[in-house]
Amino acid sequence: MTSRSENLVVEPVARLIDELARLPGIGPKTASRLTFFLLRAEAEQTRTLAEAILAMRAQVTLCRRCYNITVGELCAVCTSTTRDQSKICVVEEPLDVLAIERTGAYRGLYHVLHGHIAPLEGIYREDLKIDQLIARVRSEPIDEVILAMNPNTEGEATAFLLLKDLASLGVRITRPARGLPTGGDLEWADPDTLGSAFEGRREL
Amino acid sequence: MTSRSENLVVEPVARLIDELARLPGIGPKTASRLTFFLLRAEAEQTRTLAEAILAMRAQVTLCRRCYNITVGELCAVCTSTTRDQSKICVVEEPLDVLAIERTGAYRGLYHVLHGHIAPLEGIYREDLKIDQLIARVRSEPIDEVILAMNPNTEGEATAFLLLKDLASLGVRITRPARGLPTGGDLEWADPDTLGSAFEGRREL
Repeated sequence: MTSRSENLVVEPVARLIDELARLPGIGPKTASRLTFFLLRAEAEQTRTLAEAILAMRAQVTLCRRCYNITVGELCAVCTSTTRDQSKICVVEEPLDVLAIERTGAYRGLYHVLHGHIAPLEGIYREDLKIDQLIARVRSEPIDEVILAMNPNTEGEATAFLLLKDLASLGVRITRPARGLPTGGDLEWADPDTLGSAFEGRREL
Repeated sequence: MTSRSENLVVEPVARLIDELARLPGIGPKTASRLTFFLLRAEAEQTRTLAEAILAMRAQVTLCRRCYNITVGELCAVCTSTTRDQSKICVVEEPLDVLAIERTGAYRGLYHVLHGHIAPLEGIYREDLKIDQLIARVRSEPIDEVILAMNPNTEGEATAFLLLKDLASLGVRITRPARGLPTGGDLEWADPDTLGSAFEGRREL
């Protein structure tokens, strides 16, 4: 922007554009568009958005047992009396818990690592909730740990590290099956996925 | 989401996802991603974002002369002593003012309509700052009105309406030139643009 137009920039507008542009996947153009939308939106909508942001940060904490998000001390899974207390499913993010719950295929407990090992991004073992997982496996009556990290390089590296840590604790360690996605097209499956699908083939 | 997973939805998180998903161009997936980003971001960043939203709505008003955005009574253009007081450039949105200012090619005044005529979307003449424009042209020493609406159907319709309203007021009415965009490719120009470029050709 030239100095000629600089005096035209309205500071609160420029500030909101800057703040929105700091969010992931939102560039300066989208930030401008959102800002001018909010400028014209009902005052009510703008207020509830700002309040929702503040309320989330003020109220949401991590479950002190499994590190899933919650509003109290313990999350809904940890306080439930109907969950299988002998299984822990280890995931990278709270959103993964929601995705697995949506399937209805799992009734055990969770443990959220809050990330994956990625030394190039500066994310090391101690940045994840790994020691907390080991402590749970030692102290709770766990017989199976399901490593449900993302099926990518960082997820694999994280699973490999956990495998080493958990090996001596006398629990079954499993991973979700790899194979062809439902609705997918065999012709377009990548070689790794198709290879996993053949290796893991099952008797009908 | 099945009823089984519903108890897992943390209310402040769901609320922020809902609020973000109301913004234009942001679907439920992006809203989730932004929410979980904010959950992990520095508390400072979350707070400044919420404050920027509230501050913008509280502080930014419309210039009471040209309806551009401003923090005071009048905008920077209207209070400037160096602008040509005989020209008004009519635009649809405040962002258009910034775009034109960036060129440095115009030193007159502005008038922001805040939209375009679009009967199908329920936007009629009285929803725009058209009467306010007519009043300015009548009372201020204006000799040229530049209709700089967007070069699309709604912009054209709005310009046509303004042309009728302004015709009897004894001012020059102009429009920015239509033609090939700089850096564009003649081969790929649409017929309408290329036609305009030929119609508006200039002697070298």
